[in-house]
Amino acid sequence: MSTFLDWLAERAADRDRQGLRREVRPFKSGELVDLAGNDYLGLRRHPAVIAGAVAAAETYGGGAGASRLVTGTLELHEELEHALARLTGAPSALVLSTGYHANLAVLTSLADAETLIVSDAHAHASLIDGARLSRAAVAVSRHNDLDHVRELLAGRTQPRAVVVVESVYSVLGDAAPLGALADLSQELGAVLVVDDAHGLGVVGERGEGGAAQAGIIARDHVVVTVTLSKSLAAQGGAVLAHAAVRDHLVNTGRPFIYDTGLAPAAAGAALGALDVLATDAHLPAAVRANAALLADACGVDTPAGAVLSVTMPGPAEALAAVAVAEERGIRIGCFRPPSTPDGSSRLRLTAHADHGPEVLDHALDVLRGLVTRA
Amino acid sequence: MSTFLDWLAERAADRDRQGLRREVRPFKSGELVDLAGNDYLGLRRHPAVIAGAVAAAETYGGGAGASRLVTGTLELHEELEHALARLTGAPSALVLSTGYHANLAVLTSLADAETLIVSDAHAHASLIDGARLSRAAVAVSRHNDLDHVRELLAGRTQPRAVVVVESVYSVLGDAAPLGALADLSQELGAVLVVDDAHGLGVVGERGEGGAAQAGIIARDHVVVTVTLSKSLAAQGGAVLAHAAVRDHLVNTGRPFIYDTGLAPAAAGAALGALDVLATDAHLPAAVRANAALLADACGVDTPAGAVLSVTMPGPAEALAAVAVAEERGIRIGCFRPPSTPDGSSRLRLTAHADHGPEVLDHALDVLRGLVTRA
Repeated sequence: MSTFLDWLAERAADRDRQGLRREVRPFKSGELVDLAGNDYLGLRRHPAVIAGAVAAAETYGGGAGASRLVTGTLELHEELEHALARLTGAPSALVLSTGYHANLAVLTSLADAETLIVSDAHAHASLIDGARLSRAAVAVSRHNDLDHVRELLAGRTQPRAVVVVESVYSVLGDAAPLGALADLSQELGAVLVVDDAHGLGVVGERGEGGAAQAGIIARDHVVVTVTLSKSLAAQGGAVLAHAAVRDHLVNTGRPFIYDTGLAPAAAGAALGALDVLATDAHLPAAVRANAALLADACGVDTPAGAVLSVTMPGPAEALAAVAVAEERGIRIGCFRPPSTPDGSSRLRLTAHADHGPEVLDHALDVLRGLVTRA
Repeated sequence: MSTFLDWLAERAADRDRQGLRREVRPFKSGELVDLAGNDYLGLRRHPAVIAGAVAAAETYGGGAGASRLVTGTLELHEELEHALARLTGAPSALVLSTGYHANLAVLTSLADAETLIVSDAHAHASLIDGARLSRAAVAVSRHNDLDHVRELLAGRTQPRAVVVVESVYSVLGDAAPLGALADLSQELGAVLVVDDAHGLGVVGERGEGGAAQAGIIARDHVVVTVTLSKSLAAQGGAVLAHAAVRDHLVNTGRPFIYDTGLAPAAAGAALGALDVLATDAHLPAAVRANAALLADACGVDTPAGAVLSVTMPGPAEALAAVAVAEERGIRIGCFRPPSTPDGSSRLRLTAHADHGPEVLDHALDVLRGLVTRA
């Protein structure tokens, strides 16, 4: 028996003792209503999105075939970058393979050993990993606490600083005070990095996202990252920023340089979703309206985007709620210690623009029962 | 003028002074023969690959819509995992969004502060980043130097160790002594991680890759990573290993957990490529034969896979060779200091199974002229 397999078995036993075993099973979308995934605008199976993927695969092939710096940049990538800049009003865009790649590239390229990163306590794993990789000093700011951000920035010894936040937080579903954060960052000589993964397509009248809605996306010291895999129903990530930032990332962003370009079909699908967003102007409002209904049924405040967080008395109650919902045909998400930053147990629900009255009424009925139960 | 833009301008000026400015421009595949990209089997535009991408997009939509642990695992992902295990003989497979994600997930999940990572001097950026992120101590072993690996492993103070190599190195194009490395790692209680990105599809009679060809892929302490974006003409990455490793990654691999599942079209394209590989048994031999011809024209040894490295007298000669090749319709790659690990200047060429006699004869003619010139 190898010591490696022993070590793996011990790790697995630890997880079992904590009740934290995770498994990957195919999700049967025909059987369950998805109130857990991130296809906020319900565009994954939209004909224009599928047509975009199909046309791109037929024109450009299965993959990009090389790093974008070698022979892997396609005209389609540039088209997608222009379309993202157009929707958001960003000065330029750079497309990468995933949102994770975008966050790693931004933080490792913009922060170094002479930088203090001030990162919100609820920042996404990819932002935390990017901060670690950058070799910068990292200070964690209390969630959405502007005074704490000011204190950390003002007290720094490093010449440079980067403030890291999300427009809409992926667990709590609340919004960052982006305008104030941009002002504060500028005042204290910091770059503001905004992960707009949960804002794009949902926040703003045209789904232009949190940074655009706050009017900060074209400011020199603001760098926005987005994903193409949530509202845009595809795969990939992008950095939206001043052209000088784009140029800097092309030259220094290891997760951009040492990676194959985004697959044509993913770029085509995202372009299809951007087209739908430009013509079906009701989608962002529809997903926010559905989120408001879900929030009302759960007895929580209307969220900033499509993500709702419902605090539960404890982990057992949270798990029971997920099981009951599943019995009644609804898939919801759940966070329990130790995987929540603040030790509380929560249900996580997501709204989708394509859930019509019938599906939604049933979901609301199920949710009302769950909250009473808890 | 913001200090941020000043800082970016200084970085850009530094690059210009060193002659290292990089730009992304769309590659015009109709105008140039690609001897730089990684579509080794020439399958990007193969009808079966495109059909696989199209069918997957039509069946499953534009994106997976969620993390694989939430609602983003598709039956297609499992099909792809089974097909990868079948080709390589690996006990199990786990598909991620990119090869970069696969390497980050493996190293951050298998190494920790009580681990020594012994990483070959020519390991890929994604392996270096994974090692940094893991919080393990990292020792760099001289390239392909078994005695040095032994010395570093034997002298370690950490209870655990991970040896990190590539089956075929992406710059030099040479092969690692995988059998001996697997034996040495087992003897000294280390896990062996093999990045088979440039081996899969190219090395072995059926393109089963370097780890399978060396007969080590089913050993308990061997963990193999591959990409779907080179020979398999798509996008994505995978980890091939013991089922206990797969289970461990599903539970602890942040770049797996906090990422959207691989887009359906990419998974479908890779499955299409695996089908072609299973039926067109000549492809791996064809790319290796083309690599041997290119090597002969350049006066270097036949490489282990599809990647050739040609040392040049200096950076000016390397750049001139690239320019002359481009004038004559051939795109080749080039490495110059400071971006080469050993300070030398090199041409990097890649062979492709779909380059027929006419294209190849012209390429060989161009290359013979370049090498004489150098």
